[in-house]
Parts: sequence; C-alpha cells; structure tokens
Amino acid sequence: MTSSATLDLSLQLLRQPSVTPIDHSCQNIMAERLEKIGFTIEPMRFEDVDNLWARKGTEEPVLCFAGHTDVVPTGNLDAWNSNPFVPEIRDGKLYGRGSADMKTALAAMVVASERFVAKHPDHKGSIAFLITSDEEGPSINGTVKVVEALEARNEKMTWCLVGEPSSTNQLGDVVKNGRRGSLNAKLTVKGKQGHVAYPHLAINPIHTASKALAELCDTVWDNGNEYFPATSFQISNINAGTGATNVVPGSMNLLFNFRYSTEVTAEQLKARTLEILDRHHVDYDIEWTLSGLPFLTPVGELVNAAKNAIRNVTGIETELSTSGGTSDGRFIAPTGAQVLELGVLNASIHQINEHVNVADLEPLAEIYEQILEGLLAR
Amino acid sequence: MTSSATLDLSLQLLRQPSVTPIDHSCQNIMAERLEKIGFTIEPMRFEDVDNLWARKGTEEPVLCFAGHTDVVPTGNLDAWNSNPFVPEIRDGKLYGRGSADMKTALAAMVVASERFVAKHPDHKGSIAFLITSDEEGPSINGTVKVVEALEARNEKMTWCLVGEPSSTNQLGDVVKNGRRGSLNAKLTVKGKQGHVAYPHLAINPIHTASKALAELCDTVWDNGNEYFPATSFQISNINAGTGATNVVPGSMNLLFNFRYSTEVTAEQLKARTLEILDRHHVDYDIEWTLSGLPFLTPVGELVNAAKNAIRNVTGIETELSTSGGTSDGRFIAPTGAQVLELGVLNASIHQINEHVNVADLEPLAEIYEQILEGLLAR
Repeated sequence: MTSSATLDLSLQLLRQPSVTPIDHSCQNIMAERLEKIGFTIEPMRFEDVDNLWARKGTEEPVLCFAGHTDVVPTGNLDAWNSNPFVPEIRDGKLYGRGSADMKTALAAMVVASERFVAKHPDHKGSIAFLITSDEEGPSINGTVKVVEALEARNEKMTWCLVGEPSSTNQLGDVVKNGRRGSLNAKLTVKGKQGHVAYPHLAINPIHTASKALAELCDTVWDNGNEYFPATSFQISNINAGTGATNVVPGSMNLLFNFRYSTEVTAEQLKARTLEILDRHHVDYDIEWTLSGLPFLTPVGELVNAAKNAIRNVTGIETELSTSGGTSDGRFIAPTGAQVLELGVLNASIHQINEHVNVADLEPLAEIYEQILEGLLAR
Repeated sequence: MTSSATLDLSLQLLRQPSVTPIDHSCQNIMAERLEKIGFTIEPMRFEDVDNLWARKGTEEPVLCFAGHTDVVPTGNLDAWNSNPFVPEIRDGKLYGRGSADMKTALAAMVVASERFVAKHPDHKGSIAFLITSDEEGPSINGTVKVVEALEARNEKMTWCLVGEPSSTNQLGDVVKNGRRGSLNAKLTVKGKQGHVAYPHLAINPIHTASKALAELCDTVWDNGNEYFPATSFQISNINAGTGATNVVPGSMNLLFNFRYSTEVTAEQLKARTLEILDRHHVDYDIEWTLSGLPFLTPVGELVNAAKNAIRNVTGIETELSTSGGTSDGRFIAPTGAQVLELGVLNASIHQINEHVNVADLEPLAEIYEQILEGLLAR
C-alpha cells in the first residue's frame, strides 16, 4: 500500500470503457481487492446490468459504500484533449470519463476499507459495498433491484455513504444529506383544431389552459424546511401548433417537473395540480412518473462522523445540502438507512474533459477511512 | 349568346392550368371578349405576375369587377376523380381546380358585361375589370400593385364587385360587405436555460410569460359592431423546451393573430398587447405583420343593388357578412371604393374535387348583370 494507492486503482478503473450499462470488469477489479480483505462477494446481475453486493461481517450496524461503475457517454471524442478512456494527468488534474463521477470515489472506498481493515481486523458490525453499472441509465436493474433482494432477505444497511461528487469548490465543502423528490408529468391539453378566422368553431387549448398554467406557475407548494428549499414546479416543454399562422391547434403538450421537499407528498402535489386544472375547466390527459421520493438524513451518527472526518482531513466545516439532481440514494433511503453523499468536485461531471484534482484522491480515501473509524472502530 | 355562355367560358378558363402566379392566357381569353364590346385593355405585368386592367367608358361612376385567374395547387392528383384541369360535369356539378374559386365567377362577369352592354350600349359611367394572377400567393405583385398604378394616375373605382365564392348553402345567400383586419405577431419570450433541479439559476420563459398570456387570452378587445363580430385573439403556435424533462428552456416562441373589427386599430391592439407584456415584466422581442386592414361597405348603393339582384334572380334575402378569411378586397377598399364579395358556394374551395353547381352559373351571370342594370343603366 503506497500513498498513490487511490490513484493507482482509479487509473485501473478509468481504463475500462464502462458506458452504461456496461460494467467492463470494474466490479471484478473491486471485488478481487475486497475479497482479499475478507469480504463475501455476491454478484447480482439483473437483465443486462451487473451489480455487486459485497459484505465483510455479519453483524449490524452496517456501513455500506454505494456507487456506480457506469459512466455517461463521452460525447464528441474530437472535443476531448485526451482519450476519455486513457486516463491522463495534466497540471495536477486527472482527466478521463468517470474521473469525477465516480470511479475515483470507488477507488477511495476500496483503499479506505483496506486500510481500515488492516488497522481494525476485529471491527464492529459490517462493511458493505453496493455497486451498480446502471446509475446513469434507466436505473431499473441496478440499485433498486439489489435493494429489493436485500429487503427480501431482511438484510439491512444502517448507514450508506454514496460516493457521488458532492463537493462544489473544495473537497468536502458540501455533503448531500438528502435529496428532493422528483415528480414528472406529461400533460396533454385537448382542444379542437380550426381556422383562426373562425375561432367560435375551434377550441384553442393554449387559451383554455392559460389561466390554469399561470396559477400552477404562481403556486407556493410549500416553504421547504430546515433541510429542504421550497418545492419547485417547472414546465420544461410546451408545444402546440402546426407552424401555420392561421390554424388553431387541436392539442397542446407539456412536460413539467416537481422537485419537492419532505413537507409534501407526491400524492398531494398530484391532487393540487388536478384541482387547479379542473377548476379552470381544462380538458386534459395526464401521465405521472415518480422518478424519486425525497429522502433526508437528519444530523445524527452518519452526518456527524462525516463532518468530523472532513474537518480532520481538510480543516473545513462541511455544509449539508439537499439540492441538485437525483442519485441512487433515493432507492436506499426508503429502507430506513441513513444515507449521505460525499465525493469529489462535481464541476466537470458529464462534460467533455471530465477531471478531478489528483490532490483530492488520498484525502477522500482518508475521509472515508475516518468515517469507518468513527462508526465501526471498537 | 346562348344559355350556356357562362358555362362555355368557364370551361375555357378551367382548361388553363393557371397555378399561382401563372395566368396561362386566362386574362387574354377574357380580354379578347371584353375588347370586342368596347373595353380598353391594359395588361399590367409586375415581376412574374400578369394583371389585367380593362375599362369601358371614361366617366364615373365606375363599377369594377375584380378577381383572380390563378388557382391553388391541385394537391395529390390521385385523389381527384377527374383531371383538375380537364373540367368535367358529373351529376350537375362542374369539377375542376378553380371551378368555385373563381373562374366561373370570371366567366359570369364577362358574360354579364356582354349582355348588359348589348342592351345598354349607352350606359352611364364605366365598367372595369381588375384581374390578377396572384391572389392565392404572396399577393405582392397583384391587385395591390394595380391599385397603386390606378391611384397614381387618380383613376378611381366607385363600386367593386369581387367574385370570390361568398355563398354558403345556396347561391347568393351570403355576400361579404367587409372583412376583419388581420394582424400577426411573432413573440419571443426570453429566459435563461438551466437545470430544473436548480431553478434559481434559470429563468423559465414559460413561467415568466404565463400571467401575461392568460391575460391576453382573457382580454375583451372590443364588442364588435353592427357589421363585425368582436375582435378575436388567437395564439396559433407556442413552443419551448429541448425535449428533455430536466432542462429549463432558454426561450419560448409564440405566433398569434388578431382578426379585428373596425372598432379598433392595429396600433391600438399593438399598444394594448405591449402594455400587458410589460406590466407582467415579460422580457421579449416581438415582430408584427399587418396582413390586412379591416374594411366595411355599409348598406348603400352597391349593397342594395346586390340585394335586389339576388332577390330577383334567386328569390332569397341575402345576408351581409364580414366573417372569414382575407381577399384582395382589402387592397381595394382603402381607395374609398365600396367593395362587395359575391360569388358561388365556397364549400369545396382549395380542396380535392373542387366543384360548382352548373345550375348556379347562369343565375350568377344574371345577378351580375342586374347589378350593372341597377347601377349603370340610364
């Protein structure tokens, strides 16, 4: 074990072109290392998705490291300054697809576990890894299926540390102790096509929906709470019309999304939306898709262990945040586990020339190790 | 002159495939007939458009027959039951492109003039023809240019009878004594693109415009008057969004149209629209296109002559209407002429298997002739 252990494993993982849902042996690479230090390895393949469940110990409490080996597509290769699957260090930065999201965190988790187990072969409880290769894709055969399998045999996680890149400006400045829920809707407003010169023979869906849309845009759904900003409603797409200037369109299509706090439920949001549409006599069809329940890990053992570890390693006070997009934490939190996301800077994720600061890799492994110390050392 | 004179000339005109802006000798066919009865023929070609100005007499008042030789494209030829440019009579109906819009009316105008002149060689005032081959197209080098040429030499029309197919269920049941104005706008609402999960970093143009749009849809612009229905506002197209459910769009595009009465002006409509957008703090660009000023020919000499002629020939009381789309009457009315549209049934215009009732052709020629009698007989 050298001081470049995290970097070495990162490089090994980054060389695998594991675009969703292809794992490309990343999980094997991790599993081999974990097996050597006493983990029981359990691959869980569902359909075309490789998942890894690995656990050392049989007792509770269980600290689970969670993450994904899959990466988003590279985009235009010509726009990259180096091959996205041939990791390269330039000016202190490690470039490669997945370097920030989230193969370096996977490496840090493995290295932290190795070091912790070496120091504490007789640690309390269990250490586990829940790794999927479908976090960036449909997320149907990934974490959610593993969680179902674990639930079915009553296997519980006490704490779950997700290695998503949570940091904003500096390693550890932000951890995500929850995520808002995400509720999508596809709304079709029905009208009757006609000629603009004969509006009495047509029903213009843009017009019939206009007051309801204004009210939806103007509604205060809640005021958030200590951990969550207020629930937000955003129409992302609105389309009606044939392109012709003299035709009243027969229908209008909208997509909208709620990012919602723990102060409301998806059912309440649906009910209020329908009430507004109905009160304004809108003729519509609506399809709802719940893409994630909100979850929250209040200040407690896991949050405190993370705050202490970050302070010890980096000297900064971390900020708790529930903002941003969804992650697989949404599938784990409903089991009752405390879930926290903690990883490298997210500024370059999903972008061309994705990168991470090389100098952040060992400190991240140290943070993870200190969290293990805080929670599982005897 | 036989009882099938109008049909014969109609057939001759319908055989010319005069799709906009091609006149295909239709105006020559008419001009030869008119020249024989004393008309002075003045072709007026502007760019690629043939126009005909023909006049018999130099005195005022001037009764002008106005119309167009061009026709809209045939559409799918396979869908026609007979060649659109080989006119065919089946079950009392004359089929062919332009049969309703409006070559049979042109034939009836010529035949009516011939008969009237034969009976009244020494009639009052003047008879004129203003015929274009660009009414169905951009309408840039057609009637509007002829009117400009006439205005430039101070040549006036007193009354103008446009042969557009005005009838709804029965020949002569409706005449159009005016048309609403038509004002188009292209509105771009400006916002700032972003991620739906970070709405505070984006400006959603669908949201910022929602109240203004609701107010525009809800505004009573006027209550119309004796001749015009209330001004109507219709949004024909609304588009924003990338298709993705998680992106707040950076802009929204709308097309809308006013069909407006003589109770408001285009400038007033523009000013009220901008006031509503500004009051709701919408950030926008707007482009206006005035496609037609409203015009009105109140009850008077021309309307009465038409009503009497229709009653005499068909036995029905005609209805005055200002509804429907635009016609070249919009270019003639501003000169001060009384303008009336009177022609065959419009049910099949612009459609596959366009047709007209053969039995309506001679009565239409008679109506036109009686209007000449009513206004220009000594």
